[in-house]
Amino acid sequence: MREVAIIGIGQTKIDEHWKRSIRDLAGEAIFAALQDAGRETIDALFTGNMLSGLIDQQNNLGAVIADWIGFKGESIKVESACSSGASALQAGIIAVASGEIDSAIAVGVEKMTDSAPTEVTSALATAADSDWELEQGVSFVGLNALIMRRYMHEYGWQHKDFAPFSLNAHANAANNPNARLPFAITMKQFQNATMVAAPINLMDASPIGDGAAAALIVPLDSVHGNKRAIHIAGSGAATDTISVHSRKIPLFLQAAYLSAQRAYVQAGVLPNEIDFFELHDAFSIMSALSLEACGFAEQGQGPRLGLDNEIRPNGGRIPICTRGGLKARGHPVGATGMYQIVETVQQLRGECSETQVADAKIGMAQNIGGSGASIVTHILKTI
Amino acid sequence: MREVAIIGIGQTKIDEHWKRSIRDLAGEAIFAALQDAGRETIDALFTGNMLSGLIDQQNNLGAVIADWIGFKGESIKVESACSSGASALQAGIIAVASGEIDSAIAVGVEKMTDSAPTEVTSALATAADSDWELEQGVSFVGLNALIMRRYMHEYGWQHKDFAPFSLNAHANAANNPNARLPFAITMKQFQNATMVAAPINLMDASPIGDGAAAALIVPLDSVHGNKRAIHIAGSGAATDTISVHSRKIPLFLQAAYLSAQRAYVQAGVLPNEIDFFELHDAFSIMSALSLEACGFAEQGQGPRLGLDNEIRPNGGRIPICTRGGLKARGHPVGATGMYQIVETVQQLRGECSETQVADAKIGMAQNIGGSGASIVTHILKTI
Repeated sequence: MREVAIIGIGQTKIDEHWKRSIRDLAGEAIFAALQDAGRETIDALFTGNMLSGLIDQQNNLGAVIADWIGFKGESIKVESACSSGASALQAGIIAVASGEIDSAIAVGVEKMTDSAPTEVTSALATAADSDWELEQGVSFVGLNALIMRRYMHEYGWQHKDFAPFSLNAHANAANNPNARLPFAITMKQFQNATMVAAPINLMDASPIGDGAAAALIVPLDSVHGNKRAIHIAGSGAATDTISVHSRKIPLFLQAAYLSAQRAYVQAGVLPNEIDFFELHDAFSIMSALSLEACGFAEQGQGPRLGLDNEIRPNGGRIPICTRGGLKARGHPVGATGMYQIVETVQQLRGECSETQVADAKIGMAQNIGGSGASIVTHILKTI
Repeated sequence: MREVAIIGIGQTKIDEHWKRSIRDLAGEAIFAALQDAGRETIDALFTGNMLSGLIDQQNNLGAVIADWIGFKGESIKVESACSSGASALQAGIIAVASGEIDSAIAVGVEKMTDSAPTEVTSALATAADSDWELEQGVSFVGLNALIMRRYMHEYGWQHKDFAPFSLNAHANAANNPNARLPFAITMKQFQNATMVAAPINLMDASPIGDGAAAALIVPLDSVHGNKRAIHIAGSGAATDTISVHSRKIPLFLQAAYLSAQRAYVQAGVLPNEIDFFELHDAFSIMSALSLEACGFAEQGQGPRLGLDNEIRPNGGRIPICTRGGLKARGHPVGATGMYQIVETVQQLRGECSETQVADAKIGMAQNIGGSGASIVTHILKTI
């Protein structure tokens, strides 16, 4: 396998794009990535999307988007719930790395806000185990609430101890023009937010949205002299039981651990060499579990990093969610993994102004599908 | 890229499996493929499925099936409407060919018969253009009916001229224990069948069903001495406009042509070297269009091959649908592409008794998603 790099990125603002179709959003991100790279053609297209069949009545999205951008080649959609974006990137990486093709666009896209909230909640629940979790009446946020409650009980944390994850995300999003919620919040706002599924309140939970993000993948040996090119040094995926109740240790994200280990080995780096980490904070509890599974904190000690101010872009030991994360940049589910990649490239290029991580050379992004059932981790490096 | 081979195949009967879950069906096919190969482990799993999110309320099917078979590695779902099965195979081929992994299972699975027929009809329509076709009230069979009517008008064929496609498929299915409709039909039955969307009647249209089919992919250089191993010599994919009305020549399957050309070039074979062709006869008109686009008939002359008895397994120039095709083996949409592959392997191994193509050495399979919007073609060879 040959090494690969990203030479172009593109994204739409995450918003309620009521007047725009899903193909239109994907097209904007794709053309922006091509323009960013100064390219006009691609060999293949890989789309990450979770819900278009269910809430837009549109399957075969690979063909739909290929058609929209005027492309006739190989184009497939990859779905792994909320990790669909990173799964699409991984499919694109393997296709280029194999030598079969010389360029691929990976795009993540989702359009969620045209549907009624109850419809979206039902649709998101399809990321869990339909036969053994949903049949019991639990929602997706409900599953995460059960995990968070158990975690607080097991390790003695209070709800307010999770506040730094949310405050950091919102503060960072204030400097991201593409963020869904680009404003800082206070501790008081965090504590007084409306309850969603106890102990998860509105400030623990990420907002849905419409958006698309894309990256252009090419062989690494073709980018000599291109200072904006970023090396994809590691790409690892793993799965865990679909039901939370089937896990021996429900508070440990085994697939996060396995996929990160694969990415570390492939990239030849250790956790302490990672300069920043775009993690999957769909709910604040997931920030803690992700940091622990990837080797940045002991089990049960993830919130400590936030409380000790170690997750901020300006001087923290392991800055996270530097562009707002899922919490404040937004979580258009199947697109999220590609937003993380686009943002990781922005950091490594030094394009993040107020939230720039100084001297960032190695960044990691982790995308989670279901309650930890499918997890994809990428490590990117400057060249 | 290294060459790859299939060393194990498995399938369930296509039926109304009301008492079995989608993961259970996938598991049966996967374990059968592993047993057939005498293997117990895999490096990655690629699932082809179109509708589980929509009609089973289950997304993240890659993780669901991995969990069911006790696998923790990379597992994604690929969706390209009715060509999802072949798209999953292609993803598995590239992953093994790249050298990243040494074995992959590709499985196609669909469970459709638990839902009400109207619900299934709506779900299948998501393979077409939601914004520009479905909004006009057309169904998926309706789109194919428009194509068939135009074809009959343009080239002067009668409805009965398409009968050989259906009669051949049903006759062949009678010898396939896994077929959904394993019985021969008569010309009279074909002509008197209930109309679905004129001119397509029930004998022009393939039945839905529940089922799963799987194949184990490994590097070709690892199968020395294994006489049951089959070489995947060519794998090509292409896309066309999602809307039929956007095509300059709506009666020519451009993506079938492009994907077949890629497969021919990769395999180093010409159409006249293909010993049999498992094509995508979702509707009888598609048999004609597929034969034409792949170089077996002049444009507008596909039905002639049937009328001249050239599509039968016993002595025809280009035998098609040798195990019953979509028409009689059945069409569990996202699984169909993998049934075609399993059947192609069976032919090349010489395991098809009454419908065995004598001395078959090179077989082709073509899987179509949407009304020709995404098409994947594979060429398999004996070693």
